[in-house]
Amino acid sequence: MIIGILGGGQLGRMLALAGIPLGMRFRFLDPGPDCPSRHLGEFIQAQYDDEHALDRFVKGVDVVTYEFENVPAKAARWLTDHLPVFPPEGALATAQDRLAEKSLFTQLGIATPPHRPVDTLDDLLAAADALGIPCILKTRRMGYDGKGQFVIRSDDDVLKAWNTIGRGRGDRADLILEAFIPFQRELSMIGVRARDGATAFYPPIENVHANGILARSTAPAPHCDANTRQALEHAVGAIMQRLDYVGVLTVEFFDLGNGQILANEMAPRVHNSGHWTIEGADCSQFENHLRAVAGLPLGSTTARGQSIMLNIIGAQPDTTRLLSLPGTHLHMYGKSPRPGRKLGHITVCDNPKTAESAAALLHNC
Amino acid sequence: MIIGILGGGQLGRMLALAGIPLGMRFRFLDPGPDCPSRHLGEFIQAQYDDEHALDRFVKGVDVVTYEFENVPAKAARWLTDHLPVFPPEGALATAQDRLAEKSLFTQLGIATPPHRPVDTLDDLLAAADALGIPCILKTRRMGYDGKGQFVIRSDDDVLKAWNTIGRGRGDRADLILEAFIPFQRELSMIGVRARDGATAFYPPIENVHANGILARSTAPAPHCDANTRQALEHAVGAIMQRLDYVGVLTVEFFDLGNGQILANEMAPRVHNSGHWTIEGADCSQFENHLRAVAGLPLGSTTARGQSIMLNIIGAQPDTTRLLSLPGTHLHMYGKSPRPGRKLGHITVCDNPKTAESAAALLHNC
Repeated sequence: MIIGILGGGQLGRMLALAGIPLGMRFRFLDPGPDCPSRHLGEFIQAQYDDEHALDRFVKGVDVVTYEFENVPAKAARWLTDHLPVFPPEGALATAQDRLAEKSLFTQLGIATPPHRPVDTLDDLLAAADALGIPCILKTRRMGYDGKGQFVIRSDDDVLKAWNTIGRGRGDRADLILEAFIPFQRELSMIGVRARDGATAFYPPIENVHANGILARSTAPAPHCDANTRQALEHAVGAIMQRLDYVGVLTVEFFDLGNGQILANEMAPRVHNSGHWTIEGADCSQFENHLRAVAGLPLGSTTARGQSIMLNIIGAQPDTTRLLSLPGTHLHMYGKSPRPGRKLGHITVCDNPKTAESAAALLHNC
Repeated sequence: MIIGILGGGQLGRMLALAGIPLGMRFRFLDPGPDCPSRHLGEFIQAQYDDEHALDRFVKGVDVVTYEFENVPAKAARWLTDHLPVFPPEGALATAQDRLAEKSLFTQLGIATPPHRPVDTLDDLLAAADALGIPCILKTRRMGYDGKGQFVIRSDDDVLKAWNTIGRGRGDRADLILEAFIPFQRELSMIGVRARDGATAFYPPIENVHANGILARSTAPAPHCDANTRQALEHAVGAIMQRLDYVGVLTVEFFDLGNGQILANEMAPRVHNSGHWTIEGADCSQFENHLRAVAGLPLGSTTARGQSIMLNIIGAQPDTTRLLSLPGTHLHMYGKSPRPGRKLGHITVCDNPKTAESAAALLHNC
C-alpha cells in the first residue's frame, strides 16, 4: 500500500517510520527542498496547488493524508475528486479557521472561550468591549506556535494589536478576538477514528509551553480524574462523529482548575503532544493514524506508565550526554538548527529523574 | 552521521528504522536488486568484493557495519584499511567458520558440543567413530537456517552425508562433524559492547525452530534461573572481550535440561531472536548495535514484561486479522512471498492469548 502525505516535516517522517513496518510505502509532497521526510520515501518538491505535481503525486497512491492542516482548500478538493483523502476535507476546512472551529465546539455543546469575529477596527473595538480586557486577537487562519497572535492587556493595546496583525489584511481582516482565559494548565486529548467508525482515545496529556512553543508533555496528565478524562473523550468523540472523521484528531483544552474545561483548538492530524505514544503507548498515534486511513483495525491506546516528552528546540543537543541518561528515547528530525525551531524530541517513560536531567541538559522547562 | 551497512536485508531495514530517529543516515551495499532496505537510505547494488562499488560505498561514510556474517574476508579487509568497521574483522572471521567458533568457545572454557574437523571421507569415518551416531555433518562456512547440514542417524547415513555435502568440495571439504545433542531447548543470549568496552545483556531468549528456521522466540525465556542467566552472560561477555568486540553479538546455546548449557554458534550481528526487543525492551538490539558502532553510550536492555516474537514465513499473512488482535506489533520486510522465506514478524508483549491467536493465524508453532 502506498500512502501519499501532503507535507514532509517531522510528522511525516514519524508517520513513515511507523508505517514502513506495516508494509506501507510513502510518497511526500512538500514545497521545501530539505524536509525531514525526504529519505523515507519518494519525495516531490512542489507547491501544494501545483496540479502537475499533484498529478504525479497521486499516481499509484492508495490513500492521501496530510501532516499539517494548512493544505490549500483547492488542493484538498482536487485530491478528494481523485482518490480517498483522510481526514476528510470538511475537517480540514474547519480546523483551518479558528472561528469555524469554535462554532463547531459550540454547536456540539463543548465549552470554548468567549470569542467574536473581527474584520474591521470597529469590530475589534466592539468585541474588546464585549469580552473585556485582557483578551487575545488572533488571525483566523495559518497561525501556529503562537504566531499571528497579540495579547491585549490594556486599552492602548487594542490599536497596537490592530496595527500589528489586523491592518493591511484588506477589507475583511479575518481575525478573531478571544477572551483571555486564566487557565491553570493546557490539556490535550488525542482520539482516532477508523473508517468503520470505531474510535479510541489516548489518556489526557498535560502540555507546558515556552515562548508559545510546546516544550513538555506529560501523559497520562497528573491529577486528571475519571470525570475529566471522560469529558475530554466525549468532546473529541463528538467532533470526530460530526465530521465523519478518519484518522487522528487532537484537541487542546484549557483546564481552569475549578472543574471547568474549555476546548481551545483542534488539529486534524498527529500532534506534537502525542509524540510520547511512540514508546509510551501500546500503539503510537502515528501507527494508529495510518491504520485508520488505510482501513485497518485500530491499535491499543493504552499507556505504559507515565511518559514525559521534551521538545528539543533551537539548538543541537549534546546527544551523547542525553543518551547516557538511562531510559531516554531520542528522536531527531534531521533539521538544521534555528532559534525557535523544533529539531527533535526526547521521551522518557516512568523515569522522572532521567526526565529532569534531560530537561536540564535541554534547558527545557 | 552516515552509517554504511553491508547487506540490505530486513536486519538492515530494522537498523535504519532504529537509527533514523537518532539522526543517523544510511547507505547500503547489497548484490540483490530488490532488498528490504532499499527505501531507507542510499542503495548501492553491487557484489561485496567490487572495489569500485566499495569505493563509492565508503565515500562520506563515518563507520561501516554489516547485517550478515558472510561478508567476504577480502571486502572486510579492504574496508578496515579505509575506515572504522564494527564488529571487528576478527569477529567476522571467527563467526564465518564453525570450527574457529567452537575452538574459541573451548579456549574460553565455554562448553560446546564435541566436534571434529572433516576434510575427507576418511576424516568423516574416523570422526563418526569418535563422536558416535547420531551426529551432524555441517559445512564450516556459509550455512544458515539449517542449510548445509546433514543429520547422520545410522551407519548408512555416513556415506550419504558425504555424498550430499562433502563430495565435490575439492581436496579440503571444509566440514565439521558435531555430536548430536539431545537438547531440551535452544536459548540465545544477545550482548552488546560499546567502543569504550562497556557491555549490556538482554535476558535469555527461548527459541523454537520449524524446518530449521526460527519460528518463535520468548523473552525472557521461561524457567531460566539466575544461575543460567549469569552463565550465559558470562560466556557472551568473555567472547566479546576476547574479540575486542563492538556492536551486538548473539550466541545460541543448547539447554540440555539437566543444568548443562552448550554454546552452539554465534552471530556477530543483530539477530532474529532479538526482534522482540523493538517493543519488548527499553532500547532495542538495533538501536544498541548502532549506539555501539557509533561510539554512543549503550541503552538499557531491560525487558518490559514477557514478549513473544513469531516469524511470518513463506506466505503473506492476513494483516487485517492480525492487527485486529489486541497488542500485536507487525513488522513486514517488503519481500515477496516464497516458501521458507522470512517475510516479517509479529511481537506481542505480555499478552499470551493474543500471541496464541496470532500463532494460529500464522500457522506458527
